[in-house]
Amino acid sequence: MSVENLGLKPEVIPTDWRAGADADAVEAHLNKDGEKAIKAVCVVHNETSTGTHSWIDEVRKAMDAADHPALLMVDTISSLAVMDYRHDEWGVDVAICGSQKGLMLPPGLSFTAVSDKALAAMKTAKLPRSYWAWDDMLELNRDGVFPYTPPTAHLFGLSEAIDMLLEEGLDNVFERHARMAEAVRRAAQAWGLELWCRDPKYHSTAVTAVKMPDGHNADAFRKVVLDTFNMSLGTGLNKLAGKAFRIGHLGDTNDLTILGALAGVEMGLRLAGVPHKQGGVDAAMAYFAETARTASAKAA
Amino acid sequence: MSVENLGLKPEVIPTDWRAGADADAVEAHLNKDGEKAIKAVCVVHNETSTGTHSWIDEVRKAMDAADHPALLMVDTISSLAVMDYRHDEWGVDVAICGSQKGLMLPPGLSFTAVSDKALAAMKTAKLPRSYWAWDDMLELNRDGVFPYTPPTAHLFGLSEAIDMLLEEGLDNVFERHARMAEAVRRAAQAWGLELWCRDPKYHSTAVTAVKMPDGHNADAFRKVVLDTFNMSLGTGLNKLAGKAFRIGHLGDTNDLTILGALAGVEMGLRLAGVPHKQGGVDAAMAYFAETARTASAKAA
Amino acid sequence: MSVENLGLKPEVIPTDWRAGADADAVEAHLNKDGEKAIKAVCVVHNETSTGTHSWIDEVRKAMDAADHPALLMVDTISSLAVMDYRHDEWGVDVAICGSQKGLMLPPGLSFTAVSDKALAAMKTAKLPRSYWAWDDMLELNRDGVFPYTPPTAHLFGLSEAIDMLLEEGLDNVFERHARMAEAVRRAAQAWGLELWCRDPKYHSTAVTAVKMPDGHNADAFRKVVLDTFNMSLGTGLNKLAGKAFRIGHLGDTNDLTILGALAGVEMGLRLAGVPHKQGGVDAAMAYFAETARTASAKAA
Amino acid sequence: MSVENLGLKPEVIPTDWRAGADADAVEAHLNKDGEKAIKAVCVVHNETSTGTHSWIDEVRKAMDAADHPALLMVDTISSLAVMDYRHDEWGVDVAICGSQKGLMLPPGLSFTAVSDKALAAMKTAKLPRSYWAWDDMLELNRDGVFPYTPPTAHLFGLSEAIDMLLEEGLDNVFERHARMAEAVRRAAQAWGLELWCRDPKYHSTAVTAVKMPDGHNADAFRKVVLDTFNMSLGTGLNKLAGKAFRIGHLGDTNDLTILGALAGVEMGLRLAGVPHKQGGVDAAMAYFAETARTASAKAA
Repeated sequence: MSVENLGLKPEVIPTDWRAGADADAVEAHLNKDGEKAIKAVCVVHNETSTGTHSWIDEVRKAMDAADHPALLMVDTISSLAVMDYRHDEWGVDVAICGSQKGLMLPPGLSFTAVSDKALAAMKTAKLPRSYWAWDDMLELNRDGVFPYTPPTAHLFGLSEAIDMLLEEGLDNVFERHARMAEAVRRAAQAWGLELWCRDPKYHSTAVTAVKMPDGHNADAFRKVVLDTFNMSLGTGLNKLAGKAFRIGHLGDTNDLTILGALAGVEMGLRLAGVPHKQGGVDAAMAYFAETARTASAKAA
Repeated sequence: MSVENLGLKPEVIPTDWRAGADADAVEAHLNKDGEKAIKAVCVVHNETSTGTHSWIDEVRKAMDAADHPALLMVDTISSLAVMDYRHDEWGVDVAICGSQKGLMLPPGLSFTAVSDKALAAMKTAKLPRSYWAWDDMLELNRDGVFPYTPPTAHLFGLSEAIDMLLEEGLDNVFERHARMAEAVRRAAQAWGLELWCRDPKYHSTAVTAVKMPDGHNADAFRKVVLDTFNMSLGTGLNKLAGKAFRIGHLGDTNDLTILGALAGVEMGLRLAGVPHKQGGVDAAMAYFAETARTASAKAA
Repeated sequence: MSVENLGLKPEVIPTDWRAGADADAVEAHLNKDGEKAIKAVCVVHNETSTGTHSWIDEVRKAMDAADHPALLMVDTISSLAVMDYRHDEWGVDVAICGSQKGLMLPPGLSFTAVSDKALAAMKTAKLPRSYWAWDDMLELNRDGVFPYTPPTAHLFGLSEAIDMLLEEGLDNVFERHARMAEAVRRAAQAWGLELWCRDPKYHSTAVTAVKMPDGHNADAFRKVVLDTFNMSLGTGLNKLAGKAFRIGHLGDTNDLTILGALAGVEMGLRLAGVPHKQGGVDAAMAYFAETARTASAKAA
Repeated sequence: MSVENLGLKPEVIPTDWRAGADADAVEAHLNKDGEKAIKAVCVVHNETSTGTHSWIDEVRKAMDAADHPALLMVDTISSLAVMDYRHDEWGVDVAICGSQKGLMLPPGLSFTAVSDKALAAMKTAKLPRSYWAWDDMLELNRDGVFPYTPPTAHLFGLSEAIDMLLEEGLDNVFERHARMAEAVRRAAQAWGLELWCRDPKYHSTAVTAVKMPDGHNADAFRKVVLDTFNMSLGTGLNKLAGKAFRIGHLGDTNDLTILGALAGVEMGLRLAGVPHKQGGVDAAMAYFAETARTASAKAA
């Protein structure tokens, strides 16, 4: 839904769509807000549509440097359990997440983490709200109960997903995603295709958006891959529509499933007549084989 | 969430909590609204907390008699696929439902049906909204796509649930629920307990609320049943807290599961020291056996 | 399959089909075997078709008293995880079991427990065999491997089932089955129907066979119950064909599911015109309520 | 189990382990059996351990040419629903199959198809038997019933699997397997590794066995792949122990899963220090892309 429908008038800080959030721009913007009227800074930790990772700790430091009391709100939908996220340490006030990405469940469950500061703000807030009215939930949760019908099947799944993540170890989970992301980037480089995110600092470990060569439509290419290999690549959203396709490498994935996906892309590029060099899968295999050796040694 | 949080100022028509919605009261209320300022009449088709069934067709007639242009909005959460519901015929403008009752799925999916009149109202409405902003959904659904991540697993389940309901036949589904409700009411009567809904016209075929004898707490009784027989009876909500317990008889249930549930209640009443007469299960069995014969003959 | 097909010539000790194995008869039979030619004594721990429980420890003592070297082989298909079974303590040489009874899994997995004495016998045995050729299995199991394709899905299920049983506690599991069996017998008594097993010493805690009144066919009655209430009662097998029906009360069952089943039987008796007294479900409820109190107190 | 345990004295026709059954050798062997004492010719349709496909129609012709009355018995465990099999047309008397290969189910269900000639033989046969005693099954199946506890969950799965196969179309299913097999062979060729099956006539479309270079142990290589990429390759069995590894490409597989598997092999060869040329995955991709184009065109 558009936030305008909610009666909100958000100020959007213009940014490079091919990089993550610019903490300096946040600081400059807040510094101009002499009356401290801005209520919250909203950042997406991992921007799924562009494959960019924003650094929440830098945004936090920018807010502190501007000495601004706004709440920090973070969308962790596609980052939680994929890359490091530190709610308390980074002073995040509101974070939202869902079941269907790093937590490896079907869609159908989302949840939020809220700071004391956010709770205090809720009590004095006057804007109409539904998702942001946490009172009933907090009160009934105290007795282990939900105010509304909870998605029970998903909660059992969430419990199992958390067990799996802890068994692997969160550091290993993050490293696994980083390895897969690097392999995908090496494949794209070998194909001679550009990454949408042009600054390595902001490369996402959850999803990689690949820019289509000019004159070629990403959706036509995606259709060839879907029709021929039964693999659905992410579409380019908004400003990226038709200009990029996306390869997800998060959740319950591993070296071989990623290589299968890259093979589908490489063959699809050929079948769709998209100019490219072969060797993407080879580059990814080379990287996986090298780093697998390391991983193996480390475990021993 | 409280509707006040949403910036709404609802007028609640006082009614008998032990009956369904009073269509005459709706008509009288609308007649007083000379300026036609009321935007919508909201009714719950089956009120889960009290076990009462409101007659939507009567509310429709009341609105027509008052010649009032308000929208008619109906909560069918616990009625759809349990009792007859006719969206178009009754001129309902907005209906909401969920997966977890008559549709026999886990919680996690809800959906809405909207009339042209409601869509027109949305376009001119100025109140902030999120659930009520249907534009994106309608536009993308045209191509078979969702604007947000859809609960795919539930959608597959919904497709299967609908197949099951159509295979049984909706009329048979409604009749099955009516039989189970009658059996439960006969059991309550045999126990000498009062039904919360005191007017048979409004008896729900989805859930029956049973009034506790004065001086006995329904939640203490419910705890005995849960601890002893691992059966969770519905609690009394709001004004019924502690005063009633509820027996659900909707969805994937049949004669024998209902009798198992009634046996749990009858034994629980004994163990909790609630004054009652025995014979509730016997009364339900007698009714089931009689009507089973009929059903059998009818099928032949 | 008939054992004759296997080239075996079993001696069957005639016994009362309405009681368990007669240990004295076993002892007498072995005493007549001066040349110790009998290779094995085969007993069914819980005879599913008649609802009788044979006492393996008594058979063991009979064999010891006869000083006979035969192997003791026990069918525990419907007894394991339902009633106490002590393979080593009772000196059993070969026991077989399956997944689909007390272990609460779908059918598809069976397994065997074998003593050193049985292994030694296998090495010198000359009869053709397939199930009884354990060499390959033993040898490969040493490395955690199966000689043939193992039913992997069932093995995961077995692991979970064992966790569930140990969480409940085996003694509690056995007591739960004993309570359910007693409730079923009280229901039968209240109906004025005879139990097939006429000696309480041999009453099974896994399944109860109920004798049909003379002149009434058990299968006609079972068909009424199946058609009307979608509940499949066990048929009478062999000598019991048409003369008895069986109520299983083993595995993942509890007081309320058993009462639902008994209600189906009681209504079925009425609908099928089988002479009986009402009150079976009432008798079972009374027993469950009484003993539930005790159980509750004990847990406290 | 060894057939010797069953009291059978099979004559094994020596054959090239790197090819399928030699129909000429069968004919020659039968011609020497002047007294027609041989009861049955047993052939494995698809030999899983060597990746060889035997041509049942040729064996049938050889038996006819020898005018020999022996039964023709075929193991279709890993061939049914993968490659063409014609029970009646080829005059097969006994075929066995299982759920866990082309039928895409968990292990736990096997079944047999029997000709009238085999049934007649059973009636006069004197050898002890268990699996081969079909009387009870045939008699009870007539009424839709099983003589023993059927694996119900698997039967539901089988019904679904058959629906899936028929929806794809058996010819398409066979062609899909043939394409995947060819891609795997091209990968092996590109690696410079030998196929175990040295005669293309006998190449299996279900599984490909690849010969290890002399001086390298297949099991050591397999362990590297399992430990590093969590992929379990088939081991070499019997005479192939340590000398070959196997890549399965049957059942619920497609181009991309096969390419993921081939990538695991190619990286494993590198990590395990097995001499090979790179380019196996590239060769398979090239083949898949070429033939995908064809398939696409054909569908249009």
